[in-house]
Amino acid sequence: MPIYRAPVDDTLFLLNDVFHMERYSNLPGFADASPDVVEAVLGEAAKFCEEVLAPLNRVGDREGCERHDDGRVTTPAGFKEAFGQLRDGGWVGISIPDEFGGQGLPSVLTQIVNEYMCSANMAFAMYPGLTQGAIAALLVHAAPELKTKYLPKMVAGEWTGTMNLTEPHCGTDLGLLRTKAVKQADGSYRITGTKIFISAGEHDMAGNIIHLVLARIEGAPAGTKGISLFVVPKMLVKDDGSLGAHNGVSCGSIEEKMGIHGNATCVMNYDGAQGWLIGEENRGLNAMFVMMNEARLGVGVQGLAQSEVAYQNAALYAKERLQGRSLTGVKAPDKPADPIIVHPDVRRTLMTIRAFNEAARALVLWTALRGDVAHRSEDEKERQSADDHMGLLTPVIKGVLTDTGFANTVMAQQLYGGHGYIAEHGVEQFVRDARIAQIYEGANGIQALDLVGRKLGRDGGRAVMTFFNEVGAYLKDKSGDDKMKPYVGPMNAALGHLQQGTMWFMQNAMAKPDNAGAGATDYMHLFGLVALGFMWCKIAEAALDKLPSANGSAPRYNAKLVTARFFMERMLPETATRLARIQVGADSTMELPADAF
Amino acid sequence: MPIYRAPVDDTLFLLNDVFHMERYSNLPGFADASPDVVEAVLGEAAKFCEEVLAPLNRVGDREGCERHDDGRVTTPAGFKEAFGQLRDGGWVGISIPDEFGGQGLPSVLTQIVNEYMCSANMAFAMYPGLTQGAIAALLVHAAPELKTKYLPKMVAGEWTGTMNLTEPHCGTDLGLLRTKAVKQADGSYRITGTKIFISAGEHDMAGNIIHLVLARIEGAPAGTKGISLFVVPKMLVKDDGSLGAHNGVSCGSIEEKMGIHGNATCVMNYDGAQGWLIGEENRGLNAMFVMMNEARLGVGVQGLAQSEVAYQNAALYAKERLQGRSLTGVKAPDKPADPIIVHPDVRRTLMTIRAFNEAARALVLWTALRGDVAHRSEDEKERQSADDHMGLLTPVIKGVLTDTGFANTVMAQQLYGGHGYIAEHGVEQFVRDARIAQIYEGANGIQALDLVGRKLGRDGGRAVMTFFNEVGAYLKDKSGDDKMKPYVGPMNAALGHLQQGTMWFMQNAMAKPDNAGAGATDYMHLFGLVALGFMWCKIAEAALDKLPSANGSAPRYNAKLVTARFFMERMLPETATRLARIQVGADSTMELPADAF
Repeated sequence: MPIYRAPVDDTLFLLNDVFHMERYSNLPGFADASPDVVEAVLGEAAKFCEEVLAPLNRVGDREGCERHDDGRVTTPAGFKEAFGQLRDGGWVGISIPDEFGGQGLPSVLTQIVNEYMCSANMAFAMYPGLTQGAIAALLVHAAPELKTKYLPKMVAGEWTGTMNLTEPHCGTDLGLLRTKAVKQADGSYRITGTKIFISAGEHDMAGNIIHLVLARIEGAPAGTKGISLFVVPKMLVKDDGSLGAHNGVSCGSIEEKMGIHGNATCVMNYDGAQGWLIGEENRGLNAMFVMMNEARLGVGVQGLAQSEVAYQNAALYAKERLQGRSLTGVKAPDKPADPIIVHPDVRRTLMTIRAFNEAARALVLWTALRGDVAHRSEDEKERQSADDHMGLLTPVIKGVLTDTGFANTVMAQQLYGGHGYIAEHGVEQFVRDARIAQIYEGANGIQALDLVGRKLGRDGGRAVMTFFNEVGAYLKDKSGDDKMKPYVGPMNAALGHLQQGTMWFMQNAMAKPDNAGAGATDYMHLFGLVALGFMWCKIAEAALDKLPSANGSAPRYNAKLVTARFFMERMLPETATRLARIQVGADSTMELPADAF
Repeated sequence: MPIYRAPVDDTLFLLNDVFHMERYSNLPGFADASPDVVEAVLGEAAKFCEEVLAPLNRVGDREGCERHDDGRVTTPAGFKEAFGQLRDGGWVGISIPDEFGGQGLPSVLTQIVNEYMCSANMAFAMYPGLTQGAIAALLVHAAPELKTKYLPKMVAGEWTGTMNLTEPHCGTDLGLLRTKAVKQADGSYRITGTKIFISAGEHDMAGNIIHLVLARIEGAPAGTKGISLFVVPKMLVKDDGSLGAHNGVSCGSIEEKMGIHGNATCVMNYDGAQGWLIGEENRGLNAMFVMMNEARLGVGVQGLAQSEVAYQNAALYAKERLQGRSLTGVKAPDKPADPIIVHPDVRRTLMTIRAFNEAARALVLWTALRGDVAHRSEDEKERQSADDHMGLLTPVIKGVLTDTGFANTVMAQQLYGGHGYIAEHGVEQFVRDARIAQIYEGANGIQALDLVGRKLGRDGGRAVMTFFNEVGAYLKDKSGDDKMKPYVGPMNAALGHLQQGTMWFMQNAMAKPDNAGAGATDYMHLFGLVALGFMWCKIAEAALDKLPSANGSAPRYNAKLVTARFFMERMLPETATRLARIQVGADSTMELPADAF
C-alpha cells in the first residue's frame, strides 16, 4: 500500500523564505493569508489528502467507474463520501471571491492544495480541478445572471463542472468542430453533437454537473472563428435555484483507458440540450482559453504531484529493501544485506527525481504568485508583467513538468525491480496515471509550439526578454558570492544556451517555419532546465541565508545545497544537447516523403 | 486494432548487404542458410506473426491468464491453438542441433524470428523464449541422460521451460536464496521453497513444463557459492519418455501486473518436488548464467520489437489523422485538414524512433552473428574474440534497447493524443508490455553495473579495447570518403567521448568504486549511442554501395542515408551530456545521509 506525506514544510519554506510571500500583502486576499493561516490551511489539506484521499487511490484504480444501462455513472467505493468531505471543507472555493461564496485566499494556495490532492489521488482530484476551471471561465466571461445561477453551488462544491471540446475527428484542431447550436426564441440555444474524452462528464458525487461546451451556432463562419461557448447544465436550474428537468445531455459510454480509472472519462451525447451563451457569439475559444490556461498550470502540477508521491514511496522502499552490499564496505552488518539505498545507481535515481520535484514546486509557486499579481494587482504595469510571465511559463510548466514527472514515475518504479511491475505496491499506477498529463489540455508537442510559435514572438519578445533579464541580472548580482558559485557558474552556461537557441529561431525560423517546429520540443525542455536551475539558485540562496541560525534544521538546508549541486552537475548539462538539436534545423527531419514512413 | 508487418526486407538488407552473411559459410549450419533459404524462413515467420500472433495480442491483454481453484492455469482464447501452430512449424528449435531434433540453422535466425514474434505478441513470445533459454542451459551443462530425457520434447515445442530464480526477499542478490534441496538415495533431490515472478510457470498449452530451479543443497555454503541448479519437471518423466505422476510443484497464484497479461506470471510452490542436478553442486549460478545471457539478449530484442510495432502503428496513424495545416502551406487541399505527418514535431518523433529501430536491429544481428561464431567456430581465437564481443555488448543491448525501446513506445503513444490513452487503438498496451523488459533478467541498473564493474576490466580490458580499435579503425578507413563524412565526423567525436568516459573510470573508480556506480547508467547509454552510431555508419556504407544500381529501390537506400544523418545530428549529441555526468563523479550523488530521503 503506497504512502503519501504532503510536503508542507517544503511548501512553507518556498512561500516564506524563497518567495517572501509577505511582500505581496498589498494584494487583495493576501492580508488574510498570514504565515500562520497558511500553515493551518496546508496542515488541514495535508490531513485530508493523507488520510482520506490517498487510501482511496488504489480502490479507484481497481474499481473504476461504471456506467449503468440507464446512463447513470457510479464512482468507486468511498469517492462519494470523500467528495462530501471536500465540499464540507470548502476546498473548491478557497481562492474564489467572497461574493460567490469562496474564501478569497491567494490562488497560490489552490495550486498547493491541488498538488497534494493530485499526489494522493489524481483521478479524484480531477473532479474539483475541472470544476475550478469551469468556475474561472464563468467568472471572467459569463453574464451576471449566469454567474448568480451557477457559481455559488459550484464554488461550494455542491455541483461540479466539465469542459467539452474534443470530438471524434477534432482534438487539437478545434476549427473542425461540428457540434451545433440553434438559437431559441427565449435567447437560449439547443445544442446537438457528440463530445469525447470528457473527464468527470457523469458521476454520482454531486447534485448537478455544469458542462461548458464548445459549439457552432447555425450559420456561423467555418473554422475557429465560428465557435461559441455555452453553459449546459445536466439538470436544468429554475430561477429560484431549484433543480428542474433532466437536460438533453447524457453519457453514452465510459472509455476503457490506461489509468485514472477513478475518473469517469465519458462520451457525452448532446441531443437538443438547452444551453446558454457564455461571452460573445463566435468568441468561444477566447472564453475557453481562460479555462485552458488555468487547467494547463494545473496539469503541470499533476506531473509534479505524481513524481512526488512516486519519489516518496521509492525512497521508503530503497531504505527497507535489503539486497547486495555497498561497494564501499558493509553498511548493515546486522542484516543479511544492505538496504539498496547504499548503491550509487539507486541514489542517482532518487536524487534525480528529488532535484526535479523541489525545483518544480518552486517554479509552480513562483508562477502562481505571479498569477495572483496578474489577477489582483491594481498596478497595470505589474499586471502586464505578471501576465507576460504566466503566458510564457504556462506551456513550459505544462510540458516539462508532465514529461519529466512521468519519466520520474518510471524511474521510481524501476527501483522496485519486479515488485514495481505488479499492482501490489501501487507504483505502476503512478506511471499509468501520470501518463495522461502529457496528453490532455493540449498534448506536449502543442505546448512546445505554443511556446515557440506564439509566446516567444508576442509583443516583440517582451516576455522572454524580461525573463532573460531577470535571470541574467540575478546571476550577475550573485557572481561575486563564493558560496553561490557552484550554482551560478553552470547557470550562466545554461542561460547562454537558451539565449542561443532563441536567437537561432529568430534568425532561421522566420523564413523557414519548419525550423521552429522541429526544434520546439527541445527548446521547451531547454527552457524548463533553465527555469528549474534558476529556482535552484533561489533555493540555495535562501538555504545559505537560513543556515547560520538553523541549529536543528541545518541538515534540511544542507540537503537543499547538495541537491542544488546535483542538479547543476548532473541535470543541467543536458542544455548543450538540447541546443545542438535545435541548431541542426529541420532538414533531416523533414526530408523523407510521407510514404517512406 | 493495431497492425504489424514484419520488417523482412530490412532484415535481409542487414544480413546480406551490411553484414555479408555469406562470409560465415564456413560455420556449421550456415551452409544450409543460403540467402533464399533465409528469405523463405523469414517469410514464413512473418506470415505466422502477422496473421496468427498479432491478432491475439489485444485478446491476451484483455483476457489475461486465469488460475483455477485446482491450480490449473488457462491462457487467453486462441493462445493454445497458436502454440500448436508454433510447434507444428518447428519454430522453437530452428537453431538447435539436429541431434536433439532442431534444424541447426544459425542462431541469428532465432533472434530475428523472436523480434517478429515479440512485435506481434510479446506475452505469447515469452513461452517459446523461456523454453529456448532453458534448452540452452541444459545443452551446455546437463548430463547426457537429462538431455536425452528433456531436450527433444522441448526442442519440438511439446514441452515448455521456465527459469526459477527470484524469491520474495531475493531478486538481484541471489546469495540470499533459501529454497532447499535435499539429496535422496537415488541421486535425485527433493526441492522445497517458494519462487515468485515465474513467467510461464503454469499454463495449458503444452504437455509438460520443465522448470530450471536454483536451490541450496542442505549443508551448502552460504551466499552465492552454495547455489545449485536443478531440473524439476511439472509431470515426472518415466524412463520410456511417457509422463508419470504430478511432481510436488504447483502454481500458488498469478500476479496482477501492469502488462504482458497474456503471460502467466506465477508464484510457484515447491513442496518436496523431485529434481535432478544440472552441472556441479554449488555451481548453479554458473549454469544459470548461460540461460541468463541468452535471455538478456532476447530481452533487448523485446525492447526493439515493441518500439518497432509502436512505430508502425504511429506512422500509419500520422498519415491518416487529419488535424491542422502544415506550417509551409496546405498539403491536402481536398481534405478538411492535413495529415499530422506534415507537422515537424510529429516527424521528429517518427524519425527518432525509426533511427533507433533500424540501428538497434543491426546491433542485434551483428551481435547474434558473433554469437554464432562464439559457439560454432573451430578457431579458438575467433571464438574468444566473438565471446568477448558478446560479453561486452549483451548488457548494452539489454539495457539500452529496453530503455530506449520503452521510451519510444511512449513517444509513439503521444502521437495519438487522447486516442493513445484509451485501450481501443492498442498503443497503450505496447507501453505497458514494453515496460517489463527494463526490469526482468536483471534490472537495467544491474546491466550498467555488469558493463562497468565486470565487463570493462575483464582480461585487462581486452574486449573494450578490441571494440574501440574496431570502431576507430573503421572511422579512420572512411575518413577520406566524402560521402561518409556526415557520419564519420560526428562518430569520431562520440567515440572520443566514450573513450574519455572509460579512461575516467580507470583513473577514478579504482580508489573510489562509487564513482563507477554513479556513472554506470550514463556510461551504458553512452556506449549504446556509439554502438548504434557505428551501425548507422555500416548501414550508410552499404546503402551508398547499393545506390548506383538501385533503380526502383533507390528511395529505400536514400531513406537510410537521411535517417543516418538524423541520428548523427539529433541523437548522437547526447554523448556529451552522458560524459559530463560521468565525469562529475559520485560526490553530490552520495553525500546525503540515508535518512535525508
